[in-house]
Amino acid sequence: MIVRNLPDAAASDRKVVSNGWESIRLLLKNDGMGFSFHITTMYAGETLRMHYKNHLESVFVLSGEGTIEDLGTGEIHQLRPGVLYVLNDHDRHVVRPKTDIVTACVFNPPVTGREVHDETGAYPAESELADAASR
Amino acid sequence: MIVRNLPDAAASDRKVVSNGWESIRLLLKNDGMGFSFHITTMYAGETLRMHYKNHLESVFVLSGEGTIEDLGTGEIHQLRPGVLYVLNDHDRHVVRPKTDIVTACVFNPPVTGREVHDETGAYPAESELADAASR
Repeated sequence: MIVRNLPDAAASDRKVVSNGWESIRLLLKNDGMGFSFHITTMYAGETLRMHYKNHLESVFVLSGEGTIEDLGTGEIHQLRPGVLYVLNDHDRHVVRPKTDIVTACVFNPPVTGREVHDETGAYPAESELADAASR
Repeated sequence: MIVRNLPDAAASDRKVVSNGWESIRLLLKNDGMGFSFHITTMYAGETLRMHYKNHLESVFVLSGEGTIEDLGTGEIHQLRPGVLYVLNDHDRHVVRPKTDIVTACVFNPPVTGREVHDETGAYPAESELADAASR
């Protein structure tokens, strides 16, 4: 059994801060769970354009409000506490937080934590090209 | 992209209520994410003895307080918002909620939603024996 807590993780290198968002990775690939689990905050007023070519991701909104636009369909969905959005098809999307939005995110395959940020503020998947983004 | 929300899911068969807990399964196996994602509430005053022989699970506490006992080591950990416990080794454990505890749970492999409850109030994994419990 592993037991961790958010304040300790936030004070360690499990926390990464980037352009428009920050993320605390409570579970990473080396925990051996087959997924990673992150508490990620997207900052109020940002426009976050994302495309995860190499990962599936689910995002559950814990607090905050904004919108997500599905660039494949043009649909815009409201984000508020209790909403889950799921990038099950490597969907290109834009999140526009009206307030800070705090989320619980699950990635499959898991993020390693060793990814290096690319010029978009995201980081590439392990052994993959730099256009693969994963928070 | 899939978008769901907790109130709609709670009003559907995605919500299951059992002995001492209830769970809203926002993602199940047939969503194809490789994990399932549940918002699970464990009720105040219960003693929940669990052993998932067939699943790995991570549990992030959103609200509420209580304890978890690792029956393998005898260790007791405090549960409060921001704590993550991870059953990475099919750990036998007991949760004792002092208040209702609301959690965000991830299962690998994913729960199918077709499991039938066994006599313990849990349900077995797909194609596996009835002593495998997964919320």
